Amino acid sequence: MEKKNKIKIIGLAGSLRQDSFNKALMQTAVEFCPKNAEIEVADINLPLFNQDMENDLPESVEIFKAKIESADAVLIAAPEYNYSFSGVLKNAIDWGSRPFGNNSFENKPVAIMSASIGMLGGARAQYHLRQCFVFLNMRAFNRPEVMVPFAAEKIQDGKVVDEKTREKIIELVEALVEMAGV
Amino acid sequence: MEKKNKIKIIGLAGSLRQDSFNKALMQTAVEFCPKNAEIEVADINLPLFNQDMENDLPESVEIFKAKIESADAVLIAAPEYNYSFSGVLKNAIDWGSRPFGNNSFENKPVAIMSASIGMLGGARAQYHLRQCFVFLNMRAFNRPEVMVPFAAEKIQDGKVVDEKTREKIIELVEALVEMAGV
Amino acid sequence: MEKKNKIKIIGLAGSLRQDSFNKALMQTAVEFCPKNAEIEVADINLPLFNQDMENDLPESVEIFKAKIESADAVLIAAPEYNYSFSGVLKNAIDWGSRPFGNNSFENKPVAIMSASIGMLGGARAQYHLRQCFVFLNMRAFNRPEVMVPFAAEKIQDGKVVDEKTREKIIELVEALVEMAGV
Amino acid sequence: MEKKNKIKIIGLAGSLRQDSFNKALMQTAVEFCPKNAEIEVADINLPLFNQDMENDLPESVEIFKAKIESADAVLIAAPEYNYSFSGVLKNAIDWGSRPFGNNSFENKPVAIMSASIGMLGGARAQYHLRQCFVFLNMRAFNRPEVMVPFAAEKIQDGKVVDEKTREKIIELVEALVEMAGV
Repeated sequence: MEKKNKIKIIGLAGSLRQDSFNKALMQTAVEFCPKNAEIEVADINLPLFNQDMENDLPESVEIFKAKIESADAVLIAAPEYNYSFSGVLKNAIDWGSRPFGNNSFENKPVAIMSASIGMLGGARAQYHLRQCFVFLNMRAFNRPEVMVPFAAEKIQDGKVVDEKTREKIIELVEALVEMAGV
Repeated sequence: MEKKNKIKIIGLAGSLRQDSFNKALMQTAVEFCPKNAEIEVADINLPLFNQDMENDLPESVEIFKAKIESADAVLIAAPEYNYSFSGVLKNAIDWGSRPFGNNSFENKPVAIMSASIGMLGGARAQYHLRQCFVFLNMRAFNRPEVMVPFAAEKIQDGKVVDEKTREKIIELVEALVEMAGV
Repeated sequence: MEKKNKIKIIGLAGSLRQDSFNKALMQTAVEFCPKNAEIEVADINLPLFNQDMENDLPESVEIFKAKIESADAVLIAAPEYNYSFSGVLKNAIDWGSRPFGNNSFENKPVAIMSASIGMLGGARAQYHLRQCFVFLNMRAFNRPEVMVPFAAEKIQDGKVVDEKTREKIIELVEALVEMAGV
Repeated sequence: MEKKNKIKIIGLAGSLRQDSFNKALMQTAVEFCPKNAEIEVADINLPLFNQDMENDLPESVEIFKAKIESADAVLIAAPEYNYSFSGVLKNAIDWGSRPFGNNSFENKPVAIMSASIGMLGGARAQYHLRQCFVFLNMRAFNRPEVMVPFAAEKIQDGKVVDEKTREKIIELVEALVEMAGV
């Protein structure tokens, strides 16, 4: 019964790589999720988006969209590829937003975290995503911004080993839960 | 023999939809390509990018990367999905850029055109792509910018029926060819 | 007494030109402002920002910051210069945000409108501003977006003569008032 | 005589603060400028841009524009204010670009460097500037990108004391000189 009242967060980790740093961020979010919430990580291994299929959706896409729709909030772990978000992540977002009039993300609170091996921590991916949120009509907030640079030092064996990074992730999820709870 | 000297352009049309406006732009570019150049449209119906596969590439990706590498220039027709480029297009770009040290786009001249049903003509997708080109170390130029708004009026049955749009596309391809020829 | 309860909006029009299109947008907002709100247009003809002066502010800046602080919301009319916002507008924003710990814009609801003689209606200025709002911790919303292209046809003698443009501006101000009223 | 053949670079340092980190970057560029080039730092303490004045330019603006026009290349040191470039810098750019048909920056090679006290080193200012360069029709290149994070550790008493940062600046100026020399 208490469970029924939990804030439901759907997690999108934008890399398919087994040992992805961004999957590790998401895993940390799951592990340290506040008690009044729960995070389910969605499968974004979807077919390539094709508008011709949008009125007869592939089953995996149906499932994906249903999960987004039943969630109270969206948490994205966004790798930066080529100074933007990954195609894999954007492909999932493109499915979620369609068909026209059936945007699964409509009005959902959203938060982003990102890790990169370089010094910018995925910042460039995050600002591009924020622009997408305007169209998607999602509710993004400003703080905290979680950008994890030099990820190879802070994430080992799929675990965030850096205490400060862990704290930042927790802070982000708490802010998301708070927004979703209002 | 003359053929051997033709500038080779590889075209990426970022939508899989049959009657895509952006495919129509590309088709127009192919049709009106200057005589000293030729455009081959690449198949971007590729598997989702996964870094774990990047040292044992799927065959379709091998073919894709080889085509980019043998081209003198890249022409992109970029639909705007959710205020950015499409996941489908970015996925192809992500494959093309990897593995590390094997960026197929390195130093290639590049041009973008885009069409949308709304008033901005895909502008938002173009500026995000330009940021990617910095990382990819591609050679983008500034003018002309080809953004085709209200595409449903200008493109019919997969054909660009608007004369001014056609001229803009030709101007863009000529600028690309000139840059590639230097 | 009722007046006391009015939502106070401070307006920033980012061009100093007498017959500025963006001043005309602001004037329309003032004229058609909902009854439960009022818009005061700030003077942004300020000295150039200099951090060395930020602990002994010029009087015009003191006044500017006080007006922002006493307002419930901020409305920006943003010309697009060189594919971004104007230096004049950004200079005012830079003063408003400083000194550190004394950001006059903190947590204020904000809305943008823009007009341009070209086809994009100032879109590029708007997305750059949205990125600033993240740092400024302002509360931007997603819809409507008011971008007025081909402004020379829609604005004459400092008046918005296009009915649809007027409606869009009203819609924007109403959305801002609603957010400020919560 | 040899002097006459030197590549002339005009430097814009986008902060008026006496001990500005970005002025220090510029100073380092001046000091370590390759022998076949010279950098003159422009005064960007200009009046606020006002289109009504653009056909009767203030003298300081006339001088500014003449310097840009006589230069072979432009080097910008761009502080990041509020997640974008400074209003002060943009104001100078706005003057330089006007009046219509008299863009002083037309076709000039350009390079950016930036320093910030935070971890991103001014990256957000740089990508916004790159979008301006498209309109300004300047010739930007991709590498190196010089973003100096945690500037308070690397710049002391107006001097870049970090060897690696110094090397990066030199590398950037050399790339700019090379582009300008072609």
